[in-house]
Amino acid sequence: MTDRIKYLLDERDMPGTWYNLAADLPGLAPMRHPGTGAPIVLDDLLPIMPEEVANQELSREAEIEIPEPVRQVYAQYRPSPLFRARRLERALDTPARIYYKYEGGSPAGSHKPNTAIAQAYYNRQAGITRLATETGAGQWGSSLALAGALFGLDVSVYMVKVSYHQKPYRRMFMETYGARCTPSPSTETAAGRAVLAADPDCPGSLGIATSEALEVAGGDPGTNYAGGSVLNHVLLHQSVIGQEAIAQFALADDYPDIVIGCAGGGSNFGGLTFPFVGAALRGGPAVRVIAAEPAACPTMTRGRLDYDFGDTAGLTPLLRMHTLGHDFVPPPVHAGGLRYHGMAPLVSEALDRNLIEAVAAGQLDCFAAGVRFARSEGIVPAPESTHAIEVAMREAVRCREEGTPRTILFGLSGHGHFDLAAYESFLTGTMREEQYDPDAVATSLAALPTLADA
Amino acid sequence: MTDRIKYLLDERDMPGTWYNLAADLPGLAPMRHPGTGAPIVLDDLLPIMPEEVANQELSREAEIEIPEPVRQVYAQYRPSPLFRARRLERALDTPARIYYKYEGGSPAGSHKPNTAIAQAYYNRQAGITRLATETGAGQWGSSLALAGALFGLDVSVYMVKVSYHQKPYRRMFMETYGARCTPSPSTETAAGRAVLAADPDCPGSLGIATSEALEVAGGDPGTNYAGGSVLNHVLLHQSVIGQEAIAQFALADDYPDIVIGCAGGGSNFGGLTFPFVGAALRGGPAVRVIAAEPAACPTMTRGRLDYDFGDTAGLTPLLRMHTLGHDFVPPPVHAGGLRYHGMAPLVSEALDRNLIEAVAAGQLDCFAAGVRFARSEGIVPAPESTHAIEVAMREAVRCREEGTPRTILFGLSGHGHFDLAAYESFLTGTMREEQYDPDAVATSLAALPTLADA
Repeated sequence: MTDRIKYLLDERDMPGTWYNLAADLPGLAPMRHPGTGAPIVLDDLLPIMPEEVANQELSREAEIEIPEPVRQVYAQYRPSPLFRARRLERALDTPARIYYKYEGGSPAGSHKPNTAIAQAYYNRQAGITRLATETGAGQWGSSLALAGALFGLDVSVYMVKVSYHQKPYRRMFMETYGARCTPSPSTETAAGRAVLAADPDCPGSLGIATSEALEVAGGDPGTNYAGGSVLNHVLLHQSVIGQEAIAQFALADDYPDIVIGCAGGGSNFGGLTFPFVGAALRGGPAVRVIAAEPAACPTMTRGRLDYDFGDTAGLTPLLRMHTLGHDFVPPPVHAGGLRYHGMAPLVSEALDRNLIEAVAAGQLDCFAAGVRFARSEGIVPAPESTHAIEVAMREAVRCREEGTPRTILFGLSGHGHFDLAAYESFLTGTMREEQYDPDAVATSLAALPTLADA
Repeated sequence: MTDRIKYLLDERDMPGTWYNLAADLPGLAPMRHPGTGAPIVLDDLLPIMPEEVANQELSREAEIEIPEPVRQVYAQYRPSPLFRARRLERALDTPARIYYKYEGGSPAGSHKPNTAIAQAYYNRQAGITRLATETGAGQWGSSLALAGALFGLDVSVYMVKVSYHQKPYRRMFMETYGARCTPSPSTETAAGRAVLAADPDCPGSLGIATSEALEVAGGDPGTNYAGGSVLNHVLLHQSVIGQEAIAQFALADDYPDIVIGCAGGGSNFGGLTFPFVGAALRGGPAVRVIAAEPAACPTMTRGRLDYDFGDTAGLTPLLRMHTLGHDFVPPPVHAGGLRYHGMAPLVSEALDRNLIEAVAAGQLDCFAAGVRFARSEGIVPAPESTHAIEVAMREAVRCREEGTPRTILFGLSGHGHFDLAAYESFLTGTMREEQYDPDAVATSLAALPTLADA
């Protein structure tokens, strides 16, 4: 083959350890207890997660071994392919070399199983029989349902009610794996009942669903909570993406000048980019790293770096992160996975230290980029992933305008098979550009918890 | 890794030629002209397909080169992985070694792009600007839409009206690739208008949609027809599946005793199994080859080997094949890709010469097998593919009962992301066992064209 378009690794060449950026960010602010302001310690986490996972959450070690049973399950879809986007390069008439790391080939269709599988394994080892979690658009719930099936755990997913009804295929997907999917707010929890008492027609939110899952996990010794993003251990598990990419660039005899990922809670972004950031911090090649977020939920480009809750109800520890305030309800962009008021503390810290950049993109531009990508590369991307595509295309066009060939890598975090109604809305011209309300953000930020300067 | 579960090949190790079983079936009956009974010759085919494809349809050469531009596009998802189903083996407590060749990783989600890409390439080379085709459940239409986008061809898909409305995501998928999707019967063709005049509420059928596509292709010199199954050249293009599998078994230091594929028109089945059949005919290891068909559409197990039309309206040449009669309307099983009255002539001939076997499976058993597979291997299979899974599980259980370890290979032709409503119907107990009507088959067979003994 003259023009190679794909770089694979054998399952035996999968990384043996995950990479933890926390090791390379000395002075990283700890999670804090909302009542006392004290840094969170292991015992605070044990009611909802197994000790191994809690240790990873607090770890400052750079490398943490991937257990063999996790590698065995990873091997079904990992190492994921690194593609050279030659047809897209021709369509853009750019001198840039564009690569994308594709996570949509996992059985659940996104990068989310990378941590779902690890969390299911550790919980099973610890004797836990059930996992509870929340899901918005359903990518995370599907992935935990998959992992639960493979490790013999029951899975209860609280799915934001409006998505539960809008995306019945996602619910059916979870149920096919054997998971139980409940529209949230539900009558199963005190948190859900309180919301329903105030507003019986409440469409739900990720914050409410998280409160329900945490309540269920906290109230039953056999049940733990499993989180799909934001937390350190989640980003740790996702680092396998970037580590593989580095090995694949060696095969391609190339290395990226620019690495781009979409960012909602930060797990896809951190998973792809942190190994490159870490390599640069340890004397490797410098690389420009860009987080692409929705203009309608501009956590990094318009938010404040401060302590805030990870959920709406204020049940989580306080996290130091870029936030629009936990009361802020993002507009209904189709990229449901990017509709989150905060950003992972590790991503926030990297941004604050200028190790990465952040840019915002509008929904219409992103879907236009997604359609162009589908028609040149063949893969219909998830709405979340189109944000990375849009920003990568901007950079590729800049390479053309400046006459500078650069190597661009972006993360294609998932496919759009369950998001085709959004594509139809774009193609028929009925999709609108969603805008966030700056006043709502100001109000939400004014109400940040008082431990803000702890 | 101790227990390897995946065998990959590099894109540079993709087969350089397709394998044509017709070369190894001397005396294969020709297609015949419905008016004269004369064997079909090249000129008969040129109004609807390019010369290269027509030559392949009639070829008796064993190996036909895969053009480099086709290999370049194949490389996006090929060679497809060969998986060892270790978790399924444990779930079944079988001494059998079970492997599956997974085609669901293609951008369209099934094996269909293997021929769509080849046909789009040859048509583009021949100066054609548009392809017309029919689709039932939408796997084939999606694949041709993908191939059209990659080679710059317009694609018009006539989609069976009932599926068009039941499976809006499939239509949106095609439209995202830029294809035009029309519910059939439509007012765009004489064939469609005739049907609508007789029955304005007609839900459509694959036969009617085929007639519409053939009429459009025949009436415009810039438009050709592209078929997704049954024809020799389609099975030829699909042979890349089995050829890769043979190379992957060499990596695994194993070889199948039994090879199983689901069969509707025969393209997935022939693509997987013919290279194994050919190897055995040329002195290689003997292998048991089983075609799995729906009990509700038992073409091979209950049909007659005879000349019949490939479509309902009788616009195609006559094909010597196992058929239930072209007037037979199969019951609405969820495996839409297996709802076809006939079977590829090459598959029919192989069955007649006892080179392969055929078995039928009921829909409820197949979905039960599909759910069990999803929960052990992680992949939710297409309803069509569950037929192969069910038959593979039967053989694996027989290995346990007989205490005989055998190596079983089955084809997992696609994923079920667009078929989750069928899974819900199964999981909630509302799915029913569809039965074919023997009287309807008898009536349909009695009306076979008079050239039957040509």
